[in-house]
Amino acid sequence: MRSITVSATQMGCSVAQEDNLERAERLIRRAAAGGANIVLVQELFLTPYFPQTEDYSHFGLARPAEGHPVLSHMRGLAKELGVVLPVSFFEKSGQVYFNSVMVIDADGTQLGIYRKTHIPDDPGYYEKFYFSPGDTGFRVWDTAFGKIGVGICWDQWFPEVARSLVLKGAELILYPTAIGTCAVPEAELDDDPADYVHWQNVMLGHAAANMVPVVASNRIGTERCDAAGTAIRFWGASFISDSTGRKLKEADNSTEQVITQSFDLDELRDFRVECCCFRDRRPERYETLLTLDGNA
Amino acid sequence: MRSITVSATQMGCSVAQEDNLERAERLIRRAAAGGANIVLVQELFLTPYFPQTEDYSHFGLARPAEGHPVLSHMRGLAKELGVVLPVSFFEKSGQVYFNSVMVIDADGTQLGIYRKTHIPDDPGYYEKFYFSPGDTGFRVWDTAFGKIGVGICWDQWFPEVARSLVLKGAELILYPTAIGTCAVPEAELDDDPADYVHWQNVMLGHAAANMVPVVASNRIGTERCDAAGTAIRFWGASFISDSTGRKLKEADNSTEQVITQSFDLDELRDFRVECCCFRDRRPERYETLLTLDGNA
Repeated sequence: MRSITVSATQMGCSVAQEDNLERAERLIRRAAAGGANIVLVQELFLTPYFPQTEDYSHFGLARPAEGHPVLSHMRGLAKELGVVLPVSFFEKSGQVYFNSVMVIDADGTQLGIYRKTHIPDDPGYYEKFYFSPGDTGFRVWDTAFGKIGVGICWDQWFPEVARSLVLKGAELILYPTAIGTCAVPEAELDDDPADYVHWQNVMLGHAAANMVPVVASNRIGTERCDAAGTAIRFWGASFISDSTGRKLKEADNSTEQVITQSFDLDELRDFRVECCCFRDRRPERYETLLTLDGNA
Repeated sequence: MRSITVSATQMGCSVAQEDNLERAERLIRRAAAGGANIVLVQELFLTPYFPQTEDYSHFGLARPAEGHPVLSHMRGLAKELGVVLPVSFFEKSGQVYFNSVMVIDADGTQLGIYRKTHIPDDPGYYEKFYFSPGDTGFRVWDTAFGKIGVGICWDQWFPEVARSLVLKGAELILYPTAIGTCAVPEAELDDDPADYVHWQNVMLGHAAANMVPVVASNRIGTERCDAAGTAIRFWGASFISDSTGRKLKEADNSTEQVITQSFDLDELRDFRVECCCFRDRRPERYETLLTLDGNA
C-alpha cells in the first residue's frame, strides 16, 4: 500500500502580494497539519486575477523562475513541512511570459516547470494578451509521494491533457485554477451553478476515463476592474474526485477552505489494470486528434 | 432552430431472434410515436450477448451487411416511421467478423457502416475471440435530422472516440451497449451501483468536454451461460445527457423502456462556439496520444 494524502486550498486574493502569500502559507500549514503530502494552491494566487483586463503594466508582475523570491520561500516551506508544492507563478523568460507551475518536492528541491499549454481568451479572461502558449509539453513528476501531473486552469477543459499525463505515468492530476463568472456591470453577476457544474463535470470525466483522482483548486471572491467596469465572481467549488469520476470532497463557493483526501496509489494502479482500457487503445486510429478542424 | 428528438431503448434479449426483433421494433414504434427522429437500440439486440463464452458455433450468427434480412427490415421501418436508425449487427465480411452498426437514414437509405474500434476482453466479455478490431475509423453521418457519430460499447470508455467524432462534426454521440456485471456463480452477482456510475461518468465526461449530448442504450436482464456456469446481469441505466455532462433522462436497471429528449442543434452549436475550447486546442502537443505506453 502506497498511501498518499492530498489537499486543495481555496482563498481570495488582494492587490497586497505579501498578504496573499501569507494566506497561502497559512492554508498550506493547515493542510500539512492535517496530514497532507501534496498541497495544491490555486492559479496565480500571488495577485488578483490580472488578466481581467489588458493592461501593459501587469507584465511587471512577472519574474524569472531563477531567483524568484516566492519560489524560494515555497522551497523552504516544502522542506520544513515535508510536502510537495506545485506553485503557480507568472513567469518571465527571455522576451516572453508564461503562466507556469514550479513543482517543488517534499525536500525543497525544484523538480521542474510546466507552462500552461492552452491559453484562454474570453471577456474578462484576456490571457492571450499576457501568456505565450506553453512550450514544455505535458510533464509528470516523480515526487516523494507519487507521480503527479499538473494542468493549469484552461488545460482542464481538454481531454488531451489528462490523457497525455496518465499515459506518461501520472497517478494523480492537479489543476490550479482561477475561474468564475464575469459580468458588466457587476450587478448582473448571477449565481447560476450551471457553469461550475459543467466545469466540474469535464474534470470528473477525465478522472473517470483515465482512472486517476483529480484535484482542482480554484479561487473565491469577487474581483473588480474599475477601469473596465467589470467584475469576476470566482466560483470556488474546489474539489477532489476518486478515479471513477465521483466527487469525494468539495469546497463551497465562497469560503476560504482546505479539503483533504487520502488514496492508496497501489489500489488505484490495480484498478487501472483491471479496467483494461489502456490495453485496448488504438493510436493508429487517432490521427484526427492531431488536427484542429477534423480534416486528417 | 434545428430541433431534434432522440430516443434510447433498453430491453432484454432471448435466444429467439424473431422475438428480439419484434421487441426492438415495438420500442422503435413507441419512440417514433413519441416524436423521436433518431432511435437508438442497444448493441447486438438480435441475440443474447454471445461473447459471454468462446464458442465457435456463435460465428454462425454473423451475416454480411449486403442482403442482411434484419437490416432490410429496419430500412423499411425507418422509411415508414421517418426515423434514423443506427442498427447494431454481427457482421461477416470476407474471412473476418466485426461488431458493426449500419446507420439507416429517415428515408430508409443506408448511410454506411461503422465497425467497433476498441474490442474488450474480460471474463464474460470475450469479444476479442469474435470481433476483429474495426477498420472503418470513426465516422460521422449527415442524417436527415443532424450529424451523428456512433461509438459501440467499449468505444465509450475512450475519450479519443468522442473527441474524434466531434472534431469531424458530430452534433450528437450515440453508444449502443451491452454491459453489466459478470459473476461465477450467478449467486455472487451483486447490485453495487459503483460500476455503472463509473460507466456513466466516463460518457458524461465526453459530453461535457466535447459539448455535445450523449445517448447510451444498454440491455437489461440476466443472461446465463450454462456451459461456463456464468451469468451476466446487464445494468440497463440507459441515459441521455445534455452538452455539459448532466443526465437529462435515465432508465432504471431492469425495465424495458424508451427514454426521449429534444435538443436545439443550433443552440448546441452556439454553445460550443462560446466555450471556445476547440479554438484553443494545440495538436502539435498531442503526440503522446498516438502512443500506447506514453513514450512518444
